[in-house]
Amino acid sequence: MFFHVKELQHTAKPDRPDPVYAKKLQEILGGQFGEMTVMLQYLFQGWNCRAEAKYRDMLLDIGTEEIGHVEMIATMIAQLLEGAPVDQVEQAAANPVIGAVLGGMNPQHVIVSGLGATPTDSVGYPWNARYTIASGNLLADFRANLNAESQGRLQVVRLYEETTDRGVRDMLSFLIARDTMHQNQWMAAIEEIEQQQKATVPSSFPQNLEVEEVSYQFMNFSEGDESSTGRWASGPSMDGQGTFQYVAHPVARGQAPKLNPAPPFVHSTPGMQPVLVNH
Amino acid sequence: MFFHVKELQHTAKPDRPDPVYAKKLQEILGGQFGEMTVMLQYLFQGWNCRAEAKYRDMLLDIGTEEIGHVEMIATMIAQLLEGAPVDQVEQAAANPVIGAVLGGMNPQHVIVSGLGATPTDSVGYPWNARYTIASGNLLADFRANLNAESQGRLQVVRLYEETTDRGVRDMLSFLIARDTMHQNQWMAAIEEIEQQQKATVPSSFPQNLEVEEVSYQFMNFSEGDESSTGRWASGPSMDGQGTFQYVAHPVARGQAPKLNPAPPFVHSTPGMQPVLVNH
Amino acid sequence: MFFHVKELQHTAKPDRPDPVYAKKLQEILGGQFGEMTVMLQYLFQGWNCRAEAKYRDMLLDIGTEEIGHVEMIATMIAQLLEGAPVDQVEQAAANPVIGAVLGGMNPQHVIVSGLGATPTDSVGYPWNARYTIASGNLLADFRANLNAESQGRLQVVRLYEETTDRGVRDMLSFLIARDTMHQNQWMAAIEEIEQQQKATVPSSFPQNLEVEEVSYQFMNFSEGDESSTGRWASGPSMDGQGTFQYVAHPVARGQAPKLNPAPPFVHSTPGMQPVLVNH
Amino acid sequence: MFFHVKELQHTAKPDRPDPVYAKKLQEILGGQFGEMTVMLQYLFQGWNCRAEAKYRDMLLDIGTEEIGHVEMIATMIAQLLEGAPVDQVEQAAANPVIGAVLGGMNPQHVIVSGLGATPTDSVGYPWNARYTIASGNLLADFRANLNAESQGRLQVVRLYEETTDRGVRDMLSFLIARDTMHQNQWMAAIEEIEQQQKATVPSSFPQNLEVEEVSYQFMNFSEGDESSTGRWASGPSMDGQGTFQYVAHPVARGQAPKLNPAPPFVHSTPGMQPVLVNH
Amino acid sequence: MFFHVKELQHTAKPDRPDPVYAKKLQEILGGQFGEMTVMLQYLFQGWNCRAEAKYRDMLLDIGTEEIGHVEMIATMIAQLLEGAPVDQVEQAAANPVIGAVLGGMNPQHVIVSGLGATPTDSVGYPWNARYTIASGNLLADFRANLNAESQGRLQVVRLYEETTDRGVRDMLSFLIARDTMHQNQWMAAIEEIEQQQKATVPSSFPQNLEVEEVSYQFMNFSEGDESSTGRWASGPSMDGQGTFQYVAHPVARGQAPKLNPAPPFVHSTPGMQPVLVNH
Amino acid sequence: MFFHVKELQHTAKPDRPDPVYAKKLQEILGGQFGEMTVMLQYLFQGWNCRAEAKYRDMLLDIGTEEIGHVEMIATMIAQLLEGAPVDQVEQAAANPVIGAVLGGMNPQHVIVSGLGATPTDSVGYPWNARYTIASGNLLADFRANLNAESQGRLQVVRLYEETTDRGVRDMLSFLIARDTMHQNQWMAAIEEIEQQQKATVPSSFPQNLEVEEVSYQFMNFSEGDESSTGRWASGPSMDGQGTFQYVAHPVARGQAPKLNPAPPFVHSTPGMQPVLVNH
Repeated sequence: MFFHVKELQHTAKPDRPDPVYAKKLQEILGGQFGEMTVMLQYLFQGWNCRAEAKYRDMLLDIGTEEIGHVEMIATMIAQLLEGAPVDQVEQAAANPVIGAVLGGMNPQHVIVSGLGATPTDSVGYPWNARYTIASGNLLADFRANLNAESQGRLQVVRLYEETTDRGVRDMLSFLIARDTMHQNQWMAAIEEIEQQQKATVPSSFPQNLEVEEVSYQFMNFSEGDESSTGRWASGPSMDGQGTFQYVAHPVARGQAPKLNPAPPFVHSTPGMQPVLVNH
Repeated sequence: MFFHVKELQHTAKPDRPDPVYAKKLQEILGGQFGEMTVMLQYLFQGWNCRAEAKYRDMLLDIGTEEIGHVEMIATMIAQLLEGAPVDQVEQAAANPVIGAVLGGMNPQHVIVSGLGATPTDSVGYPWNARYTIASGNLLADFRANLNAESQGRLQVVRLYEETTDRGVRDMLSFLIARDTMHQNQWMAAIEEIEQQQKATVPSSFPQNLEVEEVSYQFMNFSEGDESSTGRWASGPSMDGQGTFQYVAHPVARGQAPKLNPAPPFVHSTPGMQPVLVNH
Repeated sequence: MFFHVKELQHTAKPDRPDPVYAKKLQEILGGQFGEMTVMLQYLFQGWNCRAEAKYRDMLLDIGTEEIGHVEMIATMIAQLLEGAPVDQVEQAAANPVIGAVLGGMNPQHVIVSGLGATPTDSVGYPWNARYTIASGNLLADFRANLNAESQGRLQVVRLYEETTDRGVRDMLSFLIARDTMHQNQWMAAIEEIEQQQKATVPSSFPQNLEVEEVSYQFMNFSEGDESSTGRWASGPSMDGQGTFQYVAHPVARGQAPKLNPAPPFVHSTPGMQPVLVNH
Repeated sequence: MFFHVKELQHTAKPDRPDPVYAKKLQEILGGQFGEMTVMLQYLFQGWNCRAEAKYRDMLLDIGTEEIGHVEMIATMIAQLLEGAPVDQVEQAAANPVIGAVLGGMNPQHVIVSGLGATPTDSVGYPWNARYTIASGNLLADFRANLNAESQGRLQVVRLYEETTDRGVRDMLSFLIARDTMHQNQWMAAIEEIEQQQKATVPSSFPQNLEVEEVSYQFMNFSEGDESSTGRWASGPSMDGQGTFQYVAHPVARGQAPKLNPAPPFVHSTPGMQPVLVNH
Repeated sequence: MFFHVKELQHTAKPDRPDPVYAKKLQEILGGQFGEMTVMLQYLFQGWNCRAEAKYRDMLLDIGTEEIGHVEMIATMIAQLLEGAPVDQVEQAAANPVIGAVLGGMNPQHVIVSGLGATPTDSVGYPWNARYTIASGNLLADFRANLNAESQGRLQVVRLYEETTDRGVRDMLSFLIARDTMHQNQWMAAIEEIEQQQKATVPSSFPQNLEVEEVSYQFMNFSEGDESSTGRWASGPSMDGQGTFQYVAHPVARGQAPKLNPAPPFVHSTPGMQPVLVNH
Repeated sequence: MFFHVKELQHTAKPDRPDPVYAKKLQEILGGQFGEMTVMLQYLFQGWNCRAEAKYRDMLLDIGTEEIGHVEMIATMIAQLLEGAPVDQVEQAAANPVIGAVLGGMNPQHVIVSGLGATPTDSVGYPWNARYTIASGNLLADFRANLNAESQGRLQVVRLYEETTDRGVRDMLSFLIARDTMHQNQWMAAIEEIEQQQKATVPSSFPQNLEVEEVSYQFMNFSEGDESSTGRWASGPSMDGQGTFQYVAHPVARGQAPKLNPAPPFVHSTPGMQPVLVNH
């Protein structure tokens, strides 16, 4: 069960309206790696958690924090939209600045939401739940989380570069700091799990059932061998179970596929005579 | 530019048809973490790569390999579908085994694809490009890749548990081995980048511009403190720049939001008199 | 079965082309509450109708009218696009007005539809059938319809504010009038049904099987009690079956969830030894 | 900002696992009118609210409650999945009951989520943000909310009919009761707003700018006149501004559309000679 | 403007209910090539038509017919659902036939639509407008239409094979006949346009601006030359403008791509020092 | 299995950056008829091919070529984005040209991809697999392919008109030439199949089972008869099996639908008394 506190986690007040920037800021609200994604990803991971209580609790703590991040950004967007010059339609033709703002806004910020934030990204594409992952395997999911926080912080930094509004930047500098923590948090949790098992997910599959000769081979599927100079091409493997090999010329091990002809009931075969299979 | 070799990378022949399993196997073809995702994710990361040539080459090598994985699984699915008893519609009512197969199949495997693989997941949802990520930041993207290979290998192992067909398992054991390599590969590439910079993505944002007092705080947003016992709650931070703190009772730092009233042109205000703003 | 009359239900002729406005107008054609939504929502409700003939007939009448509304707006958009200055690409760099039009248009209005309307909304997102509802329960569906007409009329009014073209406004003033009727129509139909049963949908669920002590409680899930002053917080309930209560401090009634550990076949448990469950 | 309490709002414990029912129950978690929809709909309406504080507070109170409903249903689904017989793959062929369970489950409940709830509906379609509405106009949005609670309660009742598990029914009976409250709440809020203004949304559009002669006409777009006997076809209109009229034979008022020929730069005209417009 | 006639274009009455077949039949209602697709595709092509009146009229005639096809199939599905044994939940465990029906149905046919047709395909995926095409170029669009009718008739025939219900088959035999006509119609219209211009779309692009040496080359991108024996590999080209050539070993003509390094403001470069570009 | 060659199939170098055009060019990369569509459509048709080896080989050859087309366009887009003036945020307010570029770009080209191509279309909508078709029936699928190449070439020509950059046009002129070939190729393959069977897909359905009297009728569903003057309205049918007829006044052949009342367990009937069907 959840409770709401009326104050925001951190201040979210722009110096001035900027409806075009409001459109861009939607990316970290309702985009693939926006706050809605991490909020729902962590909550579902927590609700589905079958491991120790500390993991469930930790996941729900951070998921709950993220609801508050969605709140901050939504509040910021609503304020950025306040100066939308929709009452100056006639003037727009003569004044290129007004025209640019009216043309550069997300039209749904007026027509659909009436100057409110929307659960969409910076091109207006709606958030959807395939952005989230909750596999039940903690190591796999913590890697998903580390990725989400990495992509997310990168996007916030890029948005920081795209404005000079001090109020917006103040909020972003808080989100950047929290993403610093959250990246560190997932790295810490990953380390904790990796100390209990091999680094490969899932570590519970019997390794002898793999086709082991290819388990540590880098295969060069192109002409030229620039790819041979990386850490992945030689030396001990990261899970400590093998040695990287570079295969300069990989060879096909399988058959040339030959599917059986289509049965008559799918009516696919060229030149087939009229037939009804099920009478 | 690309070339095709007619043989598969590894054998893909089931012992016997199994149209219901064909439906499940679609998950690792066209699902969120199926082979289509990694194929296109690596190719786009490679095509967009602005870093050293070895990274571009490596990304395109593995992306090219993944096209071949899509090919193997598609071929397998087409063969698993060959025994679909659609010519026994009348018998289905009397024979529960036939009925179960007809009912448990993906109906589009007959109606739409005529016994062929489809670019969809195990519930028939079509693959879409929001599954992929190519941010341009190598460390962020390699974490995305490590996550994709972790989720992917986990799903293949679960599918391995859901069949006892030796032919299917042979193919899966190859894919599991390649996923072992690919997880190790991304871990190696991550290590290589992290040795050049801090572990936090992006490391190029000036840390003094963050709200630094919250950069290493774990905030407990619930009653109870099970979350305090993890590695993330105390000790040095993973990026070596700070110390984890546990904040048992986080406090709001921001304002209670108060938005300005809606302007008349959005026609939102309760009880507003009739008005036209733009004449 | 349906027939077409070549004339439009109402005139749809703009005074002059306006490709940027054409993009905005798409919202009420192919948006969440555009004419495609109500057209298909009413038709499906009619086709699925298991109630008295007058309801089926009424639903199909209004659904049929809405096809004609889609036609009017599509026709308008095609005409608004006629002035797209795509033959002035070179001039666009020098002339900011041309540049603004080319930049503010939906690029698919040239590339994909060749100056025709598209079944998408104002950000180019395609219409999809999850916008519609046809539950079979008339009262529930009439409420959906009243909502759709309310959101729809609101959007048309906002679009009316965003242009001063008299031809466009003439068409919009017709659509606004029809939406006045359609809101009134659904209110009338709702009243008719509510006179036969309780206002709660569905009224056929035995009320004694509910957890009745919470059936009329407003629960305050925040600090502060601004929410206590509304009509919903005290007085008789609207369905006449109870009395609103304000619960200032709601209390959890359920368990602290504790899920069973993951079974080995899902390979989720940290530190689990290698194992294969299905041999 | 938000806080989490570890106990659920109401008990959520099934008497026994039922993986097939778990799939169905997803509808009220991640479906069009599931708890995720109302949770995010109310939160966004609250965050965007530009009206009196009591409305904002009320919206955020109920939105916060709904997060807890998502939690309850997710917890229930995870428990229903615990008996999934995936470790009995071999036996499934011989035992039709095991086969039916394995075939009737959502395959992603094993492969993707490892026996956890997913943010999808009962056919596995992911939740998306176009399910929500927050227009800024309170009356419009309260009608959206009344609809959502009506559709939602109807679906819960249907799911109640589809199981006889007492534990599941106990949770559903709580949700049904809360939906009773929430329908009544929105009816109360609607009444409050309608007392300040006309019932038509938005009431702020000057009625004289409508094409007033069609503002209260029911148009019969079919042969036969069953639709003439409803409340919507005669008598005073519901907003008190007019009188319903039944138009038995509606007549087209607009032009037969005639679009201008396609300009050469779109290359659409049949038989057009080779030409390049922009050199 | 449109009118509705209460009778269906052809009889649509099943001999007996079959809820599992109802799920399959959804494919030709709301699938990629279902009747909703052709209905909306033809209507939009007609509304956007800038060519001779006979094309606009023809497109709207067939589009109007297709609304009636959607109506027939929706009506059929509603009747097929009438026998859904949802009132026999308890019996389902003991009776495999009841269990199979309940498990094989689309659960939304009960929970969401209350035994009505839905605007979705056979896996429950909602219809969306990206299924349609209206480019403004008649020849391109008539080819789209010929394809849609070809895929559509194929799917109807496959569904005919999947039932032996005479009532269902009677309706399908009507749809198959109409699809015969519609394929022939588009072939006729294509022939008419091709007689005015070259067969290549668009024929108005000056052929000398193409890279003409590759305009009629079949390129063999694999080992082996099975592809050399088709009509496409030699002989005169179909548009009469060239001669097919078989290129056994195609060679790259372009550069090895080398992108410029990422600018600092995107924060992508590994090892980059902390920097803020926009102060 | 696939291999990669580092050089592009044809040169892809713009004369100068143009971030706004980069957004438009996305249409032929990730749009409905972009290169991703034909690439995956041909590959899946090839992998699923149950016909002669020459068809499988041909499909995989062209599918493999298309991967290289995706590569060329992605490379072009990345280069067009290089001049995005994101480091001139402050100047944008004063300089309308900078402002126009920043406003007209796809914001995700900075925030999400860091100046890289994305697998989306020109409005930012992600590519999805429902764009592809692989039915197993060669004639049906070759018609799908001819349509895809027709729509695709039309779009490339329109994009050619929207730029005067010689480098971009050089690449487009190569793609236009290849689309010339590919349209001719599919026409050739269609001719080859049609020589073996009737032109109607599928030709294997026994024609006597159709409702033959409507198999060649054009039905006029509107007032007026402009549609009677086309090739489709009279003369021999294109498949040589009948004669086109023009039906000026089509008549309904079916019943007026009357569905049975809703059963109590769906709780849809207005005024129904409280009842629980499953106890």
